[in-house]
Amino acid sequence: MNQWRKFQQGFVFDTSLGMAVDFSRAGVDRDFLEEMSVAMGRCYDELAELEAGAIANPDENRQVGHYWLRAPALAASPEMTQEIEQTLKGMEDFVQAVHAGRIQGQRGHSFKYVLLIGIGGSSLGPQFVADALGYPNQPLKAYFINNTDPDGIDRVLDEVAGYLDQTLVVVISKSGGTVETRNGMIEVRGAYAERGLDFAKHAVAVTQVGSMLDEVRKQEAWLAAFPMWDWVGGRTSLLSAVGLLPLGLLGVDVQQLLEGARLCDVWTRERVTENNPSALLALSWYKATGGQGGGQMVVLPYKDRLELVGKYLQQLVMESLGKELDRDGRRVHQGLTVLGNKGSTDQHSYVQQLLDGPNNFVAVFIEVLLDRAGSSAVMAEESTAGDYLQAFRLGTREALSQRGRSSLTILLEKVDALRVGALIALFERAVTFYASLVNINAYHQPAVELGKRSAGEIIGLKNDVVHYLKDHAHEDFSVEELVKALGCEGAEEMVFSLLWRLSYNAQSGICVVKGAAVSGEEASAQDEIAHNTDAPGDIWARRYRCVREL
Amino acid sequence: MNQWRKFQQGFVFDTSLGMAVDFSRAGVDRDFLEEMSVAMGRCYDELAELEAGAIANPDENRQVGHYWLRAPALAASPEMTQEIEQTLKGMEDFVQAVHAGRIQGQRGHSFKYVLLIGIGGSSLGPQFVADALGYPNQPLKAYFINNTDPDGIDRVLDEVAGYLDQTLVVVISKSGGTVETRNGMIEVRGAYAERGLDFAKHAVAVTQVGSMLDEVRKQEAWLAAFPMWDWVGGRTSLLSAVGLLPLGLLGVDVQQLLEGARLCDVWTRERVTENNPSALLALSWYKATGGQGGGQMVVLPYKDRLELVGKYLQQLVMESLGKELDRDGRRVHQGLTVLGNKGSTDQHSYVQQLLDGPNNFVAVFIEVLLDRAGSSAVMAEESTAGDYLQAFRLGTREALSQRGRSSLTILLEKVDALRVGALIALFERAVTFYASLVNINAYHQPAVELGKRSAGEIIGLKNDVVHYLKDHAHEDFSVEELVKALGCEGAEEMVFSLLWRLSYNAQSGICVVKGAAVSGEEASAQDEIAHNTDAPGDIWARRYRCVREL
Repeated sequence: MNQWRKFQQGFVFDTSLGMAVDFSRAGVDRDFLEEMSVAMGRCYDELAELEAGAIANPDENRQVGHYWLRAPALAASPEMTQEIEQTLKGMEDFVQAVHAGRIQGQRGHSFKYVLLIGIGGSSLGPQFVADALGYPNQPLKAYFINNTDPDGIDRVLDEVAGYLDQTLVVVISKSGGTVETRNGMIEVRGAYAERGLDFAKHAVAVTQVGSMLDEVRKQEAWLAAFPMWDWVGGRTSLLSAVGLLPLGLLGVDVQQLLEGARLCDVWTRERVTENNPSALLALSWYKATGGQGGGQMVVLPYKDRLELVGKYLQQLVMESLGKELDRDGRRVHQGLTVLGNKGSTDQHSYVQQLLDGPNNFVAVFIEVLLDRAGSSAVMAEESTAGDYLQAFRLGTREALSQRGRSSLTILLEKVDALRVGALIALFERAVTFYASLVNINAYHQPAVELGKRSAGEIIGLKNDVVHYLKDHAHEDFSVEELVKALGCEGAEEMVFSLLWRLSYNAQSGICVVKGAAVSGEEASAQDEIAHNTDAPGDIWARRYRCVREL
Repeated sequence: MNQWRKFQQGFVFDTSLGMAVDFSRAGVDRDFLEEMSVAMGRCYDELAELEAGAIANPDENRQVGHYWLRAPALAASPEMTQEIEQTLKGMEDFVQAVHAGRIQGQRGHSFKYVLLIGIGGSSLGPQFVADALGYPNQPLKAYFINNTDPDGIDRVLDEVAGYLDQTLVVVISKSGGTVETRNGMIEVRGAYAERGLDFAKHAVAVTQVGSMLDEVRKQEAWLAAFPMWDWVGGRTSLLSAVGLLPLGLLGVDVQQLLEGARLCDVWTRERVTENNPSALLALSWYKATGGQGGGQMVVLPYKDRLELVGKYLQQLVMESLGKELDRDGRRVHQGLTVLGNKGSTDQHSYVQQLLDGPNNFVAVFIEVLLDRAGSSAVMAEESTAGDYLQAFRLGTREALSQRGRSSLTILLEKVDALRVGALIALFERAVTFYASLVNINAYHQPAVELGKRSAGEIIGLKNDVVHYLKDHAHEDFSVEELVKALGCEGAEEMVFSLLWRLSYNAQSGICVVKGAAVSGEEASAQDEIAHNTDAPGDIWARRYRCVREL
C-alpha cells in the first residue's frame, strides 16, 4: 500500500473538536488491529462497565468515576449526578464572587493571586493546564507549593510575601492527610500570622468530606470548601474541583474544558478501533512495547505552552500502568516510562538517542495548527518562525521513520480549553484501554505506601535519636553507641544519615564533637559547622552531642 | 558483610567540596569493581589523554577541552590557556560594567533583565544553574527564548515588552547558524524596532569567531561578543562563555562555579575507582543496564531549586551516550534514558512504577543538608518540613532497596556555586568514563543532522507549494493535483500536512475551497477557516487556493 493511502487510513479526526491524530507511523496497521480485535472488544466492554458504575478498583472496593465529571447525567446514581452538578455550580459562584471582589481578603482587598498547595494529582494537572491556557492580564496570577522543601517554600513565599492579603490560598488534598500539603499549609499559615493576618480568611479547601483537612477548615472557618469523592482517583481528578476551582480562579473557561473532555469521551466510545484515537493510542503503546513493561512514550509537543504535558502524563501513565501484579496476581512488572518536554527544543537534547539509541519507545508529537494570535515576520527562506517549527516537527517524524522508530501526531487547531479538555480525556481513556489490554488495575498505587510507611518509621527513629541526645545533654555518642543505646541494631546507616543532616541545621541542636571541643558550641554559624570533618577516616567515628534545649 | 560496613565502603566524600556520594545501594560492590578494573584502567588512560589534548572526537577531528575551562593551565597549548583566561577576564569586566551601570541601554537606563536566546546546550545548562542559584534581588532577572514557537516567543516578549530598553539580550549559538536561535533573534530584534529601539545597543553574542552570528553582530555593532571554541561541545559548554556570561550577569559567583568543577575534576582523576565518584557513577549505570542501551537513570533531587537538573542531564547524557555505532563501527544502539523532576513531589507521580514496574534503572537521589536560610517551624511529630523531606528521601531509598532496585545518593552541604560546579563536573566525567566503557564517541551527534536536513527539504517543498498556488491564483487544487503538478510524487502526505497548517494561518493566503466558494474569501476570520471540513470523507479531496498576494 502506498504511503498516502496508509496516511489516510491512519488519520482519525473529529470536526466538532478541531482535532486529529495521525497514527500512520505508529505501527497500528490493519493487520495489527485485526490481531488485537478480540482483546479490544474486551476493553470496550470493560470501559462501558466502568462508566456504568462497576467496581473497577477492587483493591479499594471503589467505583472509578472520573468520566462522569464531564457528563454528570451518566453517573452511577442520581445522588452523584446532583453532587457533581452542585459542586460545579458552587465553584462557579465562588469564582465569580472572587472575580467581582465580593469575596475579599481580610483587609478588604480583592484577590490578585492564587497560591495552590497540593502535590501529585492535586498539582500536576492544574499546573499543566494553568500554563497551557495562561494569557496576559488573567484575573488572578498563580503560584504553586508542591513539596515539603523548606527552601522551596521560602522561594514562593518571597514572591507573594508582600501581597498575602491579596492572595487566595487553595489547599488541595483528596485524603486530607497528605504530609507535604499539610506542611505547606502550616508554613503558609505561619507566614500569614507573622504579618498579622488570619489565614482562614484567605483559604479554601478541596478535600473529601470528613477528612483531616476538612476538619481543620471547619474549625478555623475557612472561606469555603469543595468536595472530592472516593470514586475519583488523584491522577484523574483534574476535571473535579481539584482542577476546576484553581483554573476557574485563573480565568480558564472550565465549561469548555469539560465540554472538550466530554466530546472526546463520546468520540472514544466508538467501538470501531480504527476510528477511536484513545484505543489506537493504547495499541500504539502495546505495539511499541509488545505489551511488556520497559518501553517508553516520548511526548513532544511543538508548542511552548504545552511543555508541562509530559510531566502531567508521567503521573497519569506511570502511576496507572507501573504495576507488579496483574489482575490475576501474576508478576508482570508492567510500566510505560514517560518523558519529554517540547519541540523543537528537545531535538537539541535527547533526539540523538531516539534516532540512534535503542528502539524501545513511541514518540507522540503534538502539533498546533494556529501559530500565534498576530501575524509573523519572515525569518529567512520566505518562512516564518511557525513554518520552521512545523518543518522541524515533520523532519523529526521523517527521520524517526527512516530509522524504523514509531511515532504518532496529535493535531490541535489551537491550544484552548476545549482542546486541552479533549487532550486530557484522550490520554485518560488510553490508560483505561491499555490497563484492560495488559490486565492490570490502573486505579490503585499499592507500592507508594511502602515509601510512606518507611518515612513514618524514619521520623520515629529521628525522634528517638534526638530525645536520647537531649536526655543526655553534655554527653557525646558515636553512631554505633547510639544504635546500641536505642536498641535499634542494623539502623546504623539510617542514624548516620539523620545525624549528618541534623548537624548542618543549627536549629536541631545536634552538633559534631570535634576532637575535644563541641563544634556546635564553638561555631554556631552554619558555615563553620559545615566543615566538620577532620580527616576522611574520621567520619564513621564521629561523636554527636545535643548542645542546647530544643 | 553487614549493611553498616557496606554503607561505609560505598560512601565517598570530599571535605574540600562538602560533598559526598553514597554508592552503597548502587550495586557497585568490591567484586564488581574487581571485575571492571581492567576496563576502568583504560577509561582513566583515555580521560588522561583527552585532558592532555588528544583528538577525542575523531569524526569531527576535534579535541575535547571542556575540562580546561576550569583549569586553563591544563589546556593543550599556551594559546588556548590564554584564550580561556582572556575570555573570562573580558566577561567579568563586561558583567561588572553592566552591574555598575557603565554599560546601559540606548535610552540611558541600567539593564534590569537578561533575555537569553539559545537552544540545547546554549540554554539548558544556563537555565538549570540560573534556577538553582537564583536569589531575591539579583542584579538582573532572567528570561529565556529557547524555541521557534511564535506563541512561545510572544509570551516572553509580553513579559519584557515594556522594558526592552532595560533588557540585555544574550544570543548564544556555537555554530552561529542555529535556526531556532536565529529566529528568536530576528523576532526580538523586530520587537525592539517596533518600539523605536536599536537592538544592537542591547545585544551581546556568544559564538565561534567568524560564524554567521559573529558576522551579524559585527555588521550591526552589538555591545560585545564572547567566543566559543570548536574544542568545546554544546552540551559541555556550560562553563564556557555560554553559561558564565549570562550567569555572571544574574549575579552568580562564576569563579566559585569554576572552582567547584575544578575540585571535582581533581577528585575524579583518582585512579582508585572506589574513591572516584564519577567512575562509580559510570559503573552504576553499567551495572543497572549491563552496558546495553535501554536502561534509565532517574534523577531525584530533594530540593526544589534543583528541579531542572534532570532536564539538563537529559541532554548531557542522552545526546552523548545515545549512539548507533561504537568506535569500531559495530551496531550497538547505546543509550541511557534520563528522567526525573524532584522529590518528594515525584513520589506522588512515577515512583509507583519505579517500585512495581520493570527493574531497568538506577535512581540518583540528591540530598541537600542545609534546609533553608532561616529557622523552621515544627509541623507535627516534633519534625520540621526539612525533617519530612529527608525522611521521604530515605524512605524511598529504603523502599527501592527492598524491591531490589538500585539507587545512589549525592549529598551536598548546600546549593551554592561551588557545589553546582562540582555537580556539573561529576556528571560530565561520568559520561566520559561511561563512553569509554562501552566504547562509543560521546562527543558527536551524527543523527541530529538527519532531522535538520529533512526539515530543510520540507521548507523547500512548502515554498514550492506556495509558489505554485500563488502563480495560479484563483485556481484551486487538490493535494494530489499539486503533487502531480510539482512532480513530487510520494510527497502527498507532506503536502497535505503543510497545507493543513497553512490554511489555519490567514497570513499565508492559503485557503480551503468549501464547495463552490473559497472559505478564505468568505471567512477571513481564522475561526471560520478553522472548521473547514464538511464531512469526514472530504478532507482528502479538499481543494486549496491562494486568495491574496503574499
